[in-house]
Amino acid sequence: MVLVNGIFTDSVKANDRGLMYGDGVFRTLRVERGVPRYWDRHYLKLNSDCAALGITCPSAALLENELNLAAEKTPDCVAKIVVTRGPGERGFLPEAAAEPTRIILTSPMPDRVKHDEIRAYLCKLRLSRQPALAGIKHLNRLENILARMEWRDPDIAEGILLDAEGNVIEGTMSSLFLYRERGLVAPDLSFCGVGGVQRERVLEYAREKGIPVEIKPFGIDFLKQADEVFLVNSVIGLWQIVSLENASWQKGAFCEALRNWLQ
Amino acid sequence: MVLVNGIFTDSVKANDRGLMYGDGVFRTLRVERGVPRYWDRHYLKLNSDCAALGITCPSAALLENELNLAAEKTPDCVAKIVVTRGPGERGFLPEAAAEPTRIILTSPMPDRVKHDEIRAYLCKLRLSRQPALAGIKHLNRLENILARMEWRDPDIAEGILLDAEGNVIEGTMSSLFLYRERGLVAPDLSFCGVGGVQRERVLEYAREKGIPVEIKPFGIDFLKQADEVFLVNSVIGLWQIVSLENASWQKGAFCEALRNWLQ
Repeated sequence: MVLVNGIFTDSVKANDRGLMYGDGVFRTLRVERGVPRYWDRHYLKLNSDCAALGITCPSAALLENELNLAAEKTPDCVAKIVVTRGPGERGFLPEAAAEPTRIILTSPMPDRVKHDEIRAYLCKLRLSRQPALAGIKHLNRLENILARMEWRDPDIAEGILLDAEGNVIEGTMSSLFLYRERGLVAPDLSFCGVGGVQRERVLEYAREKGIPVEIKPFGIDFLKQADEVFLVNSVIGLWQIVSLENASWQKGAFCEALRNWLQ
Repeated sequence: MVLVNGIFTDSVKANDRGLMYGDGVFRTLRVERGVPRYWDRHYLKLNSDCAALGITCPSAALLENELNLAAEKTPDCVAKIVVTRGPGERGFLPEAAAEPTRIILTSPMPDRVKHDEIRAYLCKLRLSRQPALAGIKHLNRLENILARMEWRDPDIAEGILLDAEGNVIEGTMSSLFLYRERGLVAPDLSFCGVGGVQRERVLEYAREKGIPVEIKPFGIDFLKQADEVFLVNSVIGLWQIVSLENASWQKGAFCEALRNWLQ
């Protein structure tokens, strides 16, 4: 199902700035029994991402209505919400009167959601550092695509991305965390990477349970020394990494408890 | 006029990877009396940009036919050619069978083409360094948009972009050169920036005239000491910068000769 500006259609104007320049943002979330999970948080993030780019975010009520409409026939699905700056004339400067485009796409829940432990791959591509875009889930995703094209082995579920300076940042489509010495460590996303709702929820879990949290830059060797390494996003939930290059991990108690809490 | 995959329509599939991820490349060129200027060179660049992203580039003949069709009613126009990886299911990994999408958009020649000397602005946004994407005219253009949104003064025609390390790279929509000590200096585009057909033609001019060329990193102070500073692209031709921050220049003989040669 595709809904564009509230209408069931699978087409978007060719001069939409989302297409011309990747000028927009998105969210991906699960809809369960017709209810978009953690909608309030997703909307908050969508809204702040829009603000960072100077895009007027459509209202939460409007988007939620359209989400419900799109998911009417498939009450359990993955929904992707895209907000672009809208159609425009040629040129990078947005027109003051630009009307944002709202796109809702639903798709079936993927099989891979069923895994709990996964093998990961260390991507060769290094993320560039751009503080003006760091943390934003925007439509400029060529780095993720090039990284994802590095492996075809279906037994590898996700690729780990470092930045140009060797800091571990995230998975190609997920947020990364370490558990070590009874504390949680999350990468610093000041220079690159994508912030996510599940990332926030993991941090909330740590606060709730009194688990110390450090958000800081770290390299791949530090990651390999962790007791547990895991990835989260709104579709997969939590994946514990059990194999990455020459490192391997057993199924961990922290990941299991956190996974149960997240669900 | 908009032509999508050879058909007059202004709509593109909502799940096109060009829209979802900025997964594609483009060229902008002038069509004069129905003839796309420097088409062979534009196609070569389009083709190599596609190859760099693993996109199968449509044939030159097919695109040229569609360009002619799009420009039939407006023999003097600006044509933009976009090639995306095509529609796809959710997920960064491209499907092997992805059929690229071809989009041709024509628009009237802008007024600003008539200027020869311009005022420029030094953008605050710094380009990130990503060797995997450097030089490619791809659809991930949020940096250019954020940079272009920094000024609204209509008397400023272009913004100059530095990279994260302070190297001068380009204009937001143009290639930059210096003329100093009877030699041409061009920024090194190994880490960021966009390669262009007019950039290649300027380098060709220098070779033809026996003018020494250096392609190297340089900062804003080096730029300000140049005898002439100029910008080129396929639509504007050549713009000499006469004012940038506290620096100013007189109309220069090198720029004038080069402009005539380019035309």
